[in-house]
Amino acid sequence: MDAYQTLVDYQQRVDQALQKFFPEKVEEARRFDAATVDSMAALSEFTLRKAKRLRAAFLYYGYACFADPIRYDKVSKAQKGTDVGNAGITGNDNHLLYASLAMELLQSHLLIHDDIMDRDHIRRGKPTIHVQYASQRDAHYGNSMALCIGNYGIDHAVRILNKSQFPSKRKERAIEELLIFVQKVIQGQIRDLRPELRSEQEILKTYELKSATYTVEGPLHVGAILAGARPPALRLLSRYALPLGIAFQLRDDINGLYGDEEKTGKPADSDVKQGKYTLLMARALAAGTPAEQATLRSALGNQQLTTQQLDQVREIVKQRSLDSIVALAQQKMEEAVRAIQDALFRAKGKEFLLGITDFIARRDH
Amino acid sequence: MDAYQTLVDYQQRVDQALQKFFPEKVEEARRFDAATVDSMAALSEFTLRKAKRLRAAFLYYGYACFADPIRYDKVSKAQKGTDVGNAGITGNDNHLLYASLAMELLQSHLLIHDDIMDRDHIRRGKPTIHVQYASQRDAHYGNSMALCIGNYGIDHAVRILNKSQFPSKRKERAIEELLIFVQKVIQGQIRDLRPELRSEQEILKTYELKSATYTVEGPLHVGAILAGARPPALRLLSRYALPLGIAFQLRDDINGLYGDEEKTGKPADSDVKQGKYTLLMARALAAGTPAEQATLRSALGNQQLTTQQLDQVREIVKQRSLDSIVALAQQKMEEAVRAIQDALFRAKGKEFLLGITDFIARRDH
Repeated sequence: MDAYQTLVDYQQRVDQALQKFFPEKVEEARRFDAATVDSMAALSEFTLRKAKRLRAAFLYYGYACFADPIRYDKVSKAQKGTDVGNAGITGNDNHLLYASLAMELLQSHLLIHDDIMDRDHIRRGKPTIHVQYASQRDAHYGNSMALCIGNYGIDHAVRILNKSQFPSKRKERAIEELLIFVQKVIQGQIRDLRPELRSEQEILKTYELKSATYTVEGPLHVGAILAGARPPALRLLSRYALPLGIAFQLRDDINGLYGDEEKTGKPADSDVKQGKYTLLMARALAAGTPAEQATLRSALGNQQLTTQQLDQVREIVKQRSLDSIVALAQQKMEEAVRAIQDALFRAKGKEFLLGITDFIARRDH
Repeated sequence: MDAYQTLVDYQQRVDQALQKFFPEKVEEARRFDAATVDSMAALSEFTLRKAKRLRAAFLYYGYACFADPIRYDKVSKAQKGTDVGNAGITGNDNHLLYASLAMELLQSHLLIHDDIMDRDHIRRGKPTIHVQYASQRDAHYGNSMALCIGNYGIDHAVRILNKSQFPSKRKERAIEELLIFVQKVIQGQIRDLRPELRSEQEILKTYELKSATYTVEGPLHVGAILAGARPPALRLLSRYALPLGIAFQLRDDINGLYGDEEKTGKPADSDVKQGKYTLLMARALAAGTPAEQATLRSALGNQQLTTQQLDQVREIVKQRSLDSIVALAQQKMEEAVRAIQDALFRAKGKEFLLGITDFIARRDH
């Protein structure tokens, strides 16, 4: 089976598990009050929006690089001799599926807070949380509610790992790993807020922190740690994860300018309106004529951006930097593949890791 | 020794431990970049501001209710026969002191985010984090930076517990407890944002969630769990903690109107300017004449509040509700004392818990 199909299948399992997880949480909230029910329902709705579940999958297949995700349990006497075949043992991987939900809750935490900071209006095809609540009163109320609901996300992410059915020492290391990579994401977000960090090198460093760590490296590490992997194996995974994560972000930037709204889940002009200083844009600015530079600068961060201006931006970037960014993403992807080509990982994990790179580096989703 | 002096002594130990903790974190940040160093330094400065360290102390004495905080270790051969007396064993309680720092990092997380939501300008006698950063650019940048820096706080709080030197199963339960009480605080904060929850009963419920759980109950529970306490003991602690936490909040409300700025660390008019709908205010509004009600309503949330108006508010509240709130705080304090008067807790913990109630219920600090 190809890795993309594997991802799609896993996505369905994650969606089903989240559809079971959240009603329980909303039910728990009923013991408190309507306000809690409402905010937990908002976290639920946001998390359940259509998403690739890539981070949950990386956790799962990070584990699969080092151990069999299926746990075989001895069947009880009552079950024996009934309909259980398979030499008296039965098994499943639900414990690992459950742990991988932590990545999706973490994702909600980060996206909800990021949307406040970026003043984004649409996420996963629907209004962002702060915009939803702002419409009930005002922008400050919207931001405050999104701040609180985002905080529920990290809380649940850690609780899921903490309660998962793995040996305590591994869970401790996994929680430490998660919290360290969350710190890196925060660092990346802070760098994003600082306009002085705009050299090519600084942009790539920000991409590594805000994207590569939490999209690829962190989830893989958490999965690997739950399977008992040691630091040398984690370092090897990083040599795959960091370039792949950067390729992912470079593709995300391209999709942010040329992507299909249906697939990206956000308006095609939002990156430019927000003034996102992507590597794609930085290279176009560096390579453009003075007139082109002026056009790009007047478009970036312009809330009144017209369709015509957006088309001009697309054309300039296409002329000046698109090919070089596509090539860089391809190069980073190949770097990722080379890093683990000869690694002694278990086949189930390694096949997914190698197979998914192509999807990530040429994604238009 | 009286409990207040015990608290002051413990405060000094916490301050010293934090003064050791943060330079290490800032040093770690140097491996990344100047932006990270700057934001970690901001979290450090905020956390190190003068504070009572009440939550850290409750963790410590929650532990002391069930086990001896001093851990005696066998001395090594090299140490034997040198200057170590005491039957060949030596000990300290630094592991517990370290774990209790989690409460102060959590406190920073909650205060930094709360200050964004409440639009507070001064905290612990100095500008709030969002105000500090807003002055560098604009309000949105200030809020975004405070959002990120506040997130570092919860991250460090969980990491501290996760890395502390207690048995894994206890740490797991302690982390779960911490994350559950953080969820309650978020619930309290969300309730605070909702003006419809203004009956006396609803206000007290909000106080329980946003104050009592995280000031008293949560820290006590985490400490008790680290000492191996079981659910019935935790329930007993709750019967002490929740009324005491409400007494604490009622006193906080009184200090917010009549307190000394030096002691409260915030301007004397900030609660009224913010429009904080305290029980003190709710009762004054309920009991006042129509003219008094009009005065209170025009003062609440009024950013242009004059000294004369503030004095009018103080006088009305003094006439209409102050005594009843002082009495309610006293009653809640007594309820707390009665709950554990006959409990079979260890003396060191119980003495602190009983002794500190008086300080909390009559505090003007």
